[in-house]
Amino acid sequence: MTAMGATGGNNCILALSGGVGGAKLALGLSRAVPAHRLAVVCNTGDDFQHLGLTICPDLDTVTYTLAGRNNTRQGWGLADESWQVMAALKDLGGPDWFNLGDRDLATHLYRSELLSRGLPLSAVSAKLCAALGVAPRVLPMSDDRVSTRVLTDSGELSFQHYFVREQCRPRVLGFRFVGSDSARPHPDLVRLLTAPDLGAVVLCPSNPYVSIDPILSLPGVRALLRNCPAPVIAVSPIVGGRALKGPAAKMMGELGVDCSALAVAEYYRDIVDGFVLDTLDGEHVSAVADLGLVAVVANTVMVSLDDRLQLARAVLALARQLAGGSTPCSL
Amino acid sequence: MTAMGATGGNNCILALSGGVGGAKLALGLSRAVPAHRLAVVCNTGDDFQHLGLTICPDLDTVTYTLAGRNNTRQGWGLADESWQVMAALKDLGGPDWFNLGDRDLATHLYRSELLSRGLPLSAVSAKLCAALGVAPRVLPMSDDRVSTRVLTDSGELSFQHYFVREQCRPRVLGFRFVGSDSARPHPDLVRLLTAPDLGAVVLCPSNPYVSIDPILSLPGVRALLRNCPAPVIAVSPIVGGRALKGPAAKMMGELGVDCSALAVAEYYRDIVDGFVLDTLDGEHVSAVADLGLVAVVANTVMVSLDDRLQLARAVLALARQLAGGSTPCSL
Repeated sequence: MTAMGATGGNNCILALSGGVGGAKLALGLSRAVPAHRLAVVCNTGDDFQHLGLTICPDLDTVTYTLAGRNNTRQGWGLADESWQVMAALKDLGGPDWFNLGDRDLATHLYRSELLSRGLPLSAVSAKLCAALGVAPRVLPMSDDRVSTRVLTDSGELSFQHYFVREQCRPRVLGFRFVGSDSARPHPDLVRLLTAPDLGAVVLCPSNPYVSIDPILSLPGVRALLRNCPAPVIAVSPIVGGRALKGPAAKMMGELGVDCSALAVAEYYRDIVDGFVLDTLDGEHVSAVADLGLVAVVANTVMVSLDDRLQLARAVLALARQLAGGSTPCSL
Repeated sequence: MTAMGATGGNNCILALSGGVGGAKLALGLSRAVPAHRLAVVCNTGDDFQHLGLTICPDLDTVTYTLAGRNNTRQGWGLADESWQVMAALKDLGGPDWFNLGDRDLATHLYRSELLSRGLPLSAVSAKLCAALGVAPRVLPMSDDRVSTRVLTDSGELSFQHYFVREQCRPRVLGFRFVGSDSARPHPDLVRLLTAPDLGAVVLCPSNPYVSIDPILSLPGVRALLRNCPAPVIAVSPIVGGRALKGPAAKMMGELGVDCSALAVAEYYRDIVDGFVLDTLDGEHVSAVADLGLVAVVANTVMVSLDDRLQLARAVLALARQLAGGSTPCSL
């Protein structure tokens, strides 16, 4: 977290991401910098065991999105999907609350097989990326298990039970990241955060509480971000007082936090140097600046591929600005 | 193993079964006796962990067959099956040597989920039977894990690696049933074998070495069969010197055993009272009788449903004969 780092044309961009929103910006970044200079570290707090399988929603959303295979209409899973297994599972009276397409299931089966052979999750992720033709590195935040638990007025729920089975209905009281005390951040995450030639760290427009915080909860990661030689930039997931997707706005309200981009900037202020607000939130620029952050306004509502690329470019331009004019990547 | 047991009209029939051949006779028995008087205990030595799932081929073959849902053309799996997941798994470069249909996968996923929640395999099996409308009891031989290992000239192989991946090519030297020393036979298997009103035990026409022996290898089962109050009857899986399906004949040859129904009778002689040979094997009747078994000839090649029913009736008639004329079931 400093604007002093070298950000030359060969520097890496490290994106920290949750699912859909983060994956959109990751795709934009993948079109803005050469693949070998982009690493996307994904939240694995949402990962869970279901039907005997290890399911990693954020890793898969990012991987499928970078592969151009994501289901854009549905917002999760794979395009051109079929649903034979779920239909049969439902016929059997099995648990069908978590919808899994047939092709998506192949990913979970393959991953579960590889994990059962002793491969770390990051090696599994690398294999899946290779199989799907994804060139940038897509990494789990840790090869150790961390499980996000949502503390609610209906009791403590695993994230997927809260998010999918209960459709985010329970009132949120807080969060726990079980295992984060002892989980080791992935060595490449540590290496990148301490690399003298890191170009920028990008906190993607993901849910601060359940997508980014699990990554930040890993031992040492907050300190590494604070001492990071490269600019750290967050993109607000809140636009015009609303979350584009997911329960971030509802959570903020239930936690007694004003639902605004400014509140997100305040939440991240101790670890970020720069903050990107949506054009709808121009009113907050000076307040964000008062927090000591360099604030810029951009279109953060990524509908088209070009929107994703333009936002990536705005983030990289801010990184350049924070680094004092040198380019973090050859655009 | 005695002809002295009471075999009245309300007595239970206990079938010990492997996969396809055993399932055919089990289906015949299910049409010959009321559902509540039939229990099929299945070999689970073939069960294995694959793609994160627990797969139980013999239990499933019997269950699908009794449900009328088995794929008769293919000889395994479900009818009206689709293959989306396997196609996707192959695209990913995942292990595709063990073919799993989409609807069949739902069974494995549901079972794996239930096992992960702590249910014993027999309870899972009961749930699957209920879901598929299977009225007779279908039980695993044990709720504990027993794994059949095939000792071959290519080394020791797990059963599915030998059977499916290696297509039974390696030369067989012997077998091991890992875990059978400490596995407990299912309590209902023990209860049935000691029940005064047991009508008959039927060793289905399954592979003696890898389908029936794993059941017999469980502590106490051989002794229970020897002391069983009901007649114990085996149906030869060898017809005219050949196995109708699977590697039984090849195994017998490699183990230096004459491939004949007589050799099967010799193999089982210490635990059975009666033996059913195919009409093609009438020449062996007197030799089987010389072993001290009551031998009968029947059509054991079950092509039609009526073939299955007729063979079941022949087995039950032999049980009646061995029990001294009382009927083991109301035919």
